[in-house]
Amino acid sequence: MEMEVIEIKTAGVEPEVHELIRRRWSPRSFADRPVAPDMLRRVLAAARWAPSAYNEQPWRFIVARREDPEAFNRLLACLNEGNRRWAQRAPVLMLVLARRTFSHSGAPNPHAWYDTGQAVAYLTLQATALGLYVHQMAGILPDEARRRCAIPEDYDVVVALALGYLGAPARLPEDLQARERSPRTRRPLTELVYEGRWGTPARFLTQEDGHAS
Amino acid sequence: MEMEVIEIKTAGVEPEVHELIRRRWSPRSFADRPVAPDMLRRVLAAARWAPSAYNEQPWRFIVARREDPEAFNRLLACLNEGNRRWAQRAPVLMLVLARRTFSHSGAPNPHAWYDTGQAVAYLTLQATALGLYVHQMAGILPDEARRRCAIPEDYDVVVALALGYLGAPARLPEDLQARERSPRTRRPLTELVYEGRWGTPARFLTQEDGHAS
Repeated sequence: MEMEVIEIKTAGVEPEVHELIRRRWSPRSFADRPVAPDMLRRVLAAARWAPSAYNEQPWRFIVARREDPEAFNRLLACLNEGNRRWAQRAPVLMLVLARRTFSHSGAPNPHAWYDTGQAVAYLTLQATALGLYVHQMAGILPDEARRRCAIPEDYDVVVALALGYLGAPARLPEDLQARERSPRTRRPLTELVYEGRWGTPARFLTQEDGHAS
Repeated sequence: MEMEVIEIKTAGVEPEVHELIRRRWSPRSFADRPVAPDMLRRVLAAARWAPSAYNEQPWRFIVARREDPEAFNRLLACLNEGNRRWAQRAPVLMLVLARRTFSHSGAPNPHAWYDTGQAVAYLTLQATALGLYVHQMAGILPDEARRRCAIPEDYDVVVALALGYLGAPARLPEDLQARERSPRTRRPLTELVYEGRWGTPARFLTQEDGHAS
């Protein structure tokens, strides 16, 4: 069952894209299997090595494991209802925070969210390398999170994420099962990439390699 | 020379972190070797597969290759002076943009920068897999970029980046050479990760694996 889903989610991704990026996707169904402390440590260690403006490393993580019901339910209560439905079965939840200011000057850090996105991308691909899956959620209750988890004013609550091993789609409420089996889709590259200025098609997208050397 | 630098930059990174993340760093010195069109296409194709809120894919890229001096100088003029000094020798420059609003509703997208950070992280690790290096720059002139590259109002100019093969530190102005040879540093994990609520140390960072199964 899981194998079929993995095949559907990987199939549409260009074969020249690295295997970790090809295999990654955001499931809602997680297996009933805990994530060992060392695995958790390794995905968070990977996040640390993302680059950031002035090497500020604005990212912070509040983690809760299902083995610790008090912490887990606290984080679960910070998700919106739609996400709570499936995320309650994930073995690990995290809140991802970003420090709004530079620690060396106190000045606003406009790249705090951007850099935090990079850290979570590293975390996610490290998880993929370990056979784990991540599902990020923008649908959270930031004020609830700040209050329940005592998050300081200077930190934004950016996203939540669920982490764990892949589960069968049948473990999900029926109305969520179809999404688990639909292929991943993306905009065409020509809509995302221009050359020299906005709107000019990038010649290298169609050019043969010989031209460049 | 490049080998020595690569060793210094990789050495401090925990061995349990994935090889692509361990090897990645942000050089200022690039080799005098162009990036083939297909390589360029592959790093941008990888960016496409990052996740994003509502699958909006807010990221856009304006690319300039040194073989095209008009485009290259236009992008170079969008960097601050400090970055122009070394980035002028990179074979490829890019401006990274983020669409501020959702295309399905026109409503503000608070995760536009965050998701764009993820896309650039994917681009960067794909580059690493191909033997290429990326150096992102927060030090840019966004208004200059908007004017020169005709960037629509609805898109933010987030960062610029240089892409290419690694060059010897000696190719750089003397005052920049030392940074090329200094080890990468990061905050300790205990400063970045809490359990259950802000400030509570994460037990799994020190726990043995046996406890979890």
